[in-house]
Amino acid sequence: MKIYLDNTASTPLLNEVIDCMNDTMLNLFANPSSIHFHGRNSKVAIETARKSIAKYLNCTPSEIFFTSGGTEANNMALYGCVYDLGVKHVITSPIEHHAVLETLENFVHRGLIEIHFVKINEKGQIDYDSLENLLKTYPASLVSLMHANNEISNLLSINKVSRICRKYDAIFHSDTVQTICHYKIDLQKTDVDFVSCSAHKFHGPKGIGFIYINKNRVKISPLLFGGGQERGMRGGTENIYGVVGMAKAFEIAHQNMDLDMRKILSLKSYMIENLNKTFVGIEYLGDSATDGLYTVLSVLFPENVFDDMLLMRLDIEGVSASSGSACTSGALKGSHVMKHLKIPENRQTVRFSFSKFNTIEEIDFCIEVLKKIKNS
Amino acid sequence: MKIYLDNTASTPLLNEVIDCMNDTMLNLFANPSSIHFHGRNSKVAIETARKSIAKYLNCTPSEIFFTSGGTEANNMALYGCVYDLGVKHVITSPIEHHAVLETLENFVHRGLIEIHFVKINEKGQIDYDSLENLLKTYPASLVSLMHANNEISNLLSINKVSRICRKYDAIFHSDTVQTICHYKIDLQKTDVDFVSCSAHKFHGPKGIGFIYINKNRVKISPLLFGGGQERGMRGGTENIYGVVGMAKAFEIAHQNMDLDMRKILSLKSYMIENLNKTFVGIEYLGDSATDGLYTVLSVLFPENVFDDMLLMRLDIEGVSASSGSACTSGALKGSHVMKHLKIPENRQTVRFSFSKFNTIEEIDFCIEVLKKIKNS
Repeated sequence: MKIYLDNTASTPLLNEVIDCMNDTMLNLFANPSSIHFHGRNSKVAIETARKSIAKYLNCTPSEIFFTSGGTEANNMALYGCVYDLGVKHVITSPIEHHAVLETLENFVHRGLIEIHFVKINEKGQIDYDSLENLLKTYPASLVSLMHANNEISNLLSINKVSRICRKYDAIFHSDTVQTICHYKIDLQKTDVDFVSCSAHKFHGPKGIGFIYINKNRVKISPLLFGGGQERGMRGGTENIYGVVGMAKAFEIAHQNMDLDMRKILSLKSYMIENLNKTFVGIEYLGDSATDGLYTVLSVLFPENVFDDMLLMRLDIEGVSASSGSACTSGALKGSHVMKHLKIPENRQTVRFSFSKFNTIEEIDFCIEVLKKIKNS
Repeated sequence: MKIYLDNTASTPLLNEVIDCMNDTMLNLFANPSSIHFHGRNSKVAIETARKSIAKYLNCTPSEIFFTSGGTEANNMALYGCVYDLGVKHVITSPIEHHAVLETLENFVHRGLIEIHFVKINEKGQIDYDSLENLLKTYPASLVSLMHANNEISNLLSINKVSRICRKYDAIFHSDTVQTICHYKIDLQKTDVDFVSCSAHKFHGPKGIGFIYINKNRVKISPLLFGGGQERGMRGGTENIYGVVGMAKAFEIAHQNMDLDMRKILSLKSYMIENLNKTFVGIEYLGDSATDGLYTVLSVLFPENVFDDMLLMRLDIEGVSASSGSACTSGALKGSHVMKHLKIPENRQTVRFSFSKFNTIEEIDFCIEVLKKIKNS
């Protein structure tokens, strides 16, 4: 038996998404920028997808720009703020995704910006007073804070941050890669300047995502220059099948959101209950066992129950989970988020993350595997 | 009848490519950066594709970095040269693709570089003496010249340019988007620093491509920062299906290259023959009727035979062709390449471009449509 509990890293494609990508691959091959019959058909598919996505987010289609994924979307927002809007100070947290932190560090390296980190507590929660204090010193900065932390699940009070940002005339970018299509986001009520999306986090395809740019507040240049695609904002022939597949996954996620959320939450509760029974002294990182992102359970096992081979042993026994972000796990270096939370060396952490395709049987299997490893 | 003669803009996907993308979409969903069973399967698919592509190009797999397409690859090379290698002077031609020209113009706008244009003659051919003269004045510049012009087909003497570049210690980037998988390129014999590739130009998927970076000569930073993907050179979860589809299209293109080339050349000769019979005084732009890129026929119709509605009339009659690059044709502004060749206003140009899926019957149909429009 092989079970997959790493859905924060990536999710399986929905059959409906594969089918509609297949149709698109078979039928729409022309360049959407071509003005002829074949090209117009491609264009219609792209623009229909854009409208559909915009409708679910309650923004205008002209605020959605397709990218190759969440990383490009985050990079585009940050490059735009620094190169076009002249941002010199960026306020962020030390536990953002690498797509944000690495980009900002590169800008520091180039002598373009200074980074100021908001305080976080031992649970990894953002200190909103610290944010406000930083903005008092550095008004009109860029604030980049992710909506949900991909490793420890903590959710940002996005509206609260937005109000603080507006008070100090700051630009607000939020990496929403883990929350779009997991929560209903209404961009008329959530006053942000940039959000980012990656389709493969909600059973859509890899290699496609988008950036939302609040048209009433910010105007940036492209990151990728080329033809006039994406209304002059992103060069490169559009990934038609990706766009169509993302829109389909977006639609299905929104239609079933409450049901999926309840299912995943019940799986998570069941897992917590069984872990608590099995491991005395077990803890959960961040808000992952309370009101954090519902797809993530970030487990801190008791002292000396497991050694640092735990993830590999889980893998051998057929359980795919992770120690943190997939983007760094391949590199076999420790997660910067875990490092920041100061996990003792004799305690192991595992991030289990769920989708609607997981089952109670899989959770049972995972618990049995953990018991087996513990006793081995 | 609808016929598609715009294969330089994009090509139909091969069934074999769709099939293998389908398999990949069904079976490989995990993040290639995840170290578990599911992740490793994704990783193997990506690295197998990289090795296969590197073998055909006779380079090492570590010199291939997957991107979202040719535009990102070209941007990455140019950003890297300017931001990492400190290039201040760029020598290019006025008829490069927008992915190069727009990027460079942005760098000029940012005060980072000066652009120097090589001379081109009335056929759009590069004046190699002009290139050498510019390099005498600006040695150690970046030279960016495309391998085949996408609008008028002219092929660059890439080895000649390479020798000139090496003599003056210049960096050499070549946009090879129209030639990779159309010609055999041996990177051990072609001494370039960067080349770019876009899969949808050879019956592969859109949204995927790569940059080749000559590991013995240049070292740049990522353009998209994030996780450690692509050996730290390109953040973002890999587009697995795209990568696998591209490698399949790459393989098929190389296996059938001579046959496909002969077929396409015979279609083009047939079209030239019939156009010459039908339109006295017809001409062909660049080297498209002689020794240019074999997929492109760039036609200059005689004076006053057609008006500026020609492309739209062709479209109405079922023939999809273009006036230049698809990347600008959607914008309905004239092609910068045509502008540079000083086409008289009373003469119309059409770029017909072919793939192995076109037939003699389609060419006959196209000629009949042109006759009909001429007489209407």
